[in-house]
Amino acid sequence: MDPIRIDDPADPRVAPYMDIRERDLAGRQGRFVAEGKVVLNVLFSARRFEVESVLLLENRLAGMAETLKSVPADVPVYVASSDVLDGIAGFHMHRGVLAIGLKRPPETIETILETLPERALVVVLVGIANHDNIGAIFRNAAAFGADAILLDETCCDPLYRKAIRVSVGAALKVPFAVASETGSLVDTLGKHGFEQIALSPQGTVDCRDMARPQRLALWFGTEGEGLPEKLMRRLKTVKIAMAGGFDSLNVAAASAITLHHFTDHRV
Amino acid sequence: MDPIRIDDPADPRVAPYMDIRERDLAGRQGRFVAEGKVVLNVLFSARRFEVESVLLLENRLAGMAETLKSVPADVPVYVASSDVLDGIAGFHMHRGVLAIGLKRPPETIETILETLPERALVVVLVGIANHDNIGAIFRNAAAFGADAILLDETCCDPLYRKAIRVSVGAALKVPFAVASETGSLVDTLGKHGFEQIALSPQGTVDCRDMARPQRLALWFGTEGEGLPEKLMRRLKTVKIAMAGGFDSLNVAAASAITLHHFTDHRV
Repeated sequence: MDPIRIDDPADPRVAPYMDIRERDLAGRQGRFVAEGKVVLNVLFSARRFEVESVLLLENRLAGMAETLKSVPADVPVYVASSDVLDGIAGFHMHRGVLAIGLKRPPETIETILETLPERALVVVLVGIANHDNIGAIFRNAAAFGADAILLDETCCDPLYRKAIRVSVGAALKVPFAVASETGSLVDTLGKHGFEQIALSPQGTVDCRDMARPQRLALWFGTEGEGLPEKLMRRLKTVKIAMAGGFDSLNVAAASAITLHHFTDHRV
Repeated sequence: MDPIRIDDPADPRVAPYMDIRERDLAGRQGRFVAEGKVVLNVLFSARRFEVESVLLLENRLAGMAETLKSVPADVPVYVASSDVLDGIAGFHMHRGVLAIGLKRPPETIETILETLPERALVVVLVGIANHDNIGAIFRNAAAFGADAILLDETCCDPLYRKAIRVSVGAALKVPFAVASETGSLVDTLGKHGFEQIALSPQGTVDCRDMARPQRLALWFGTEGEGLPEKLMRRLKTVKIAMAGGFDSLNVAAASAITLHHFTDHRV
């Protein structure tokens, strides 16, 4: 690995890193930005996504030596001074550890479900449009060994820069797919033998009283509206018990509690 | 309640709302900013803090009628157009529901502990310097009925605007106090009959295998460093079991899981 020095922010080799925030908004045509050492470690070790290039602040190079050992040999590693890096990114990048990854062709729900083991846990998200929540749910899914995440079309992109960062790289590790329609997703999951549980403040069963089925799909909706009525009628609803007078839980916190409850992992 | 119209952003009556972001950074000398209908509902109903004034975007007035019924009669309610409100705040306030509250004289740990019921759950935070995490932990503490939160001096202020917002008002409801020194806090909590548990990836007991003691203090440290070694040696350590290869959990998620495990609330 021979780092390539970049001295001109307009160098075409670092064009995918230009004006990071503006490009986040505009969309990236098949690419995503991974930031920070921990995220890059997941990107390189999970190997779910191809890496196009790495860009480092020059003074981070030494500290990244171990991480860079797992970068494929044909991936260029660029280094730049703080001024040049800020000129590329369009704002001050104090961490200075970046990589560009290539998105994969979208996977179908069927493809994902067919690869799952006999005993499996999937998370299904409907209407989660906040990158912090998406990132945090991916992180919890990875922490408790969920096998895949299925999203409806109104969820935001797990490969958005902030979602990847909040997920601490889990968005680059946990397989996911987008369902075009939630009604038929219920059918498909049923056909694959999944017991389907929706988290809901209107649920009648305490999630603590539910045993883990062999194949479990855990559905989460938005914090405000929750899952659509029509969907809820087709799913078993469970509840997280809370104190009276403040029964308000963030959806990522709800995912942490239920994934922890249903995970097979023990100390 | 007679709303008072503000037409000049420089009106001294709305001075505490001026340049909100700059003032967040500079500190507010005894005041805090509460934002959004849900947070204002908690502020008015919990009555832990005095309210100095309310400032609303004019088109939000009708929708706030129910909430405003619980504002004390002597609290002025200001309304402004979108232009004037943006001129006051220094940026575009699309929600346009604000209040200024008055901080209380700092409570001592002893005062808080003396008011607790016989069966009690307190959260102790060390080094949590991120407003999202502080806000999320307060929200979880309120959701699962924790009686108080004790913070060391390196934690950030729960009454910082963003922390209040992320807490969905819980920072205005759950009593808290700042400890000058964590070593003596262990002694004080012990003296008050608290069993003390530290969450730690190095813990040997699965938190699921711990029964809830009558009086429980749950200690949380930062995600990176965790709790200081010296402190950990004096506490019982427990662990949240995770999947191999991705044992990384956000501290707010860890608080959700353990508070849910130890709460007395059931469906």
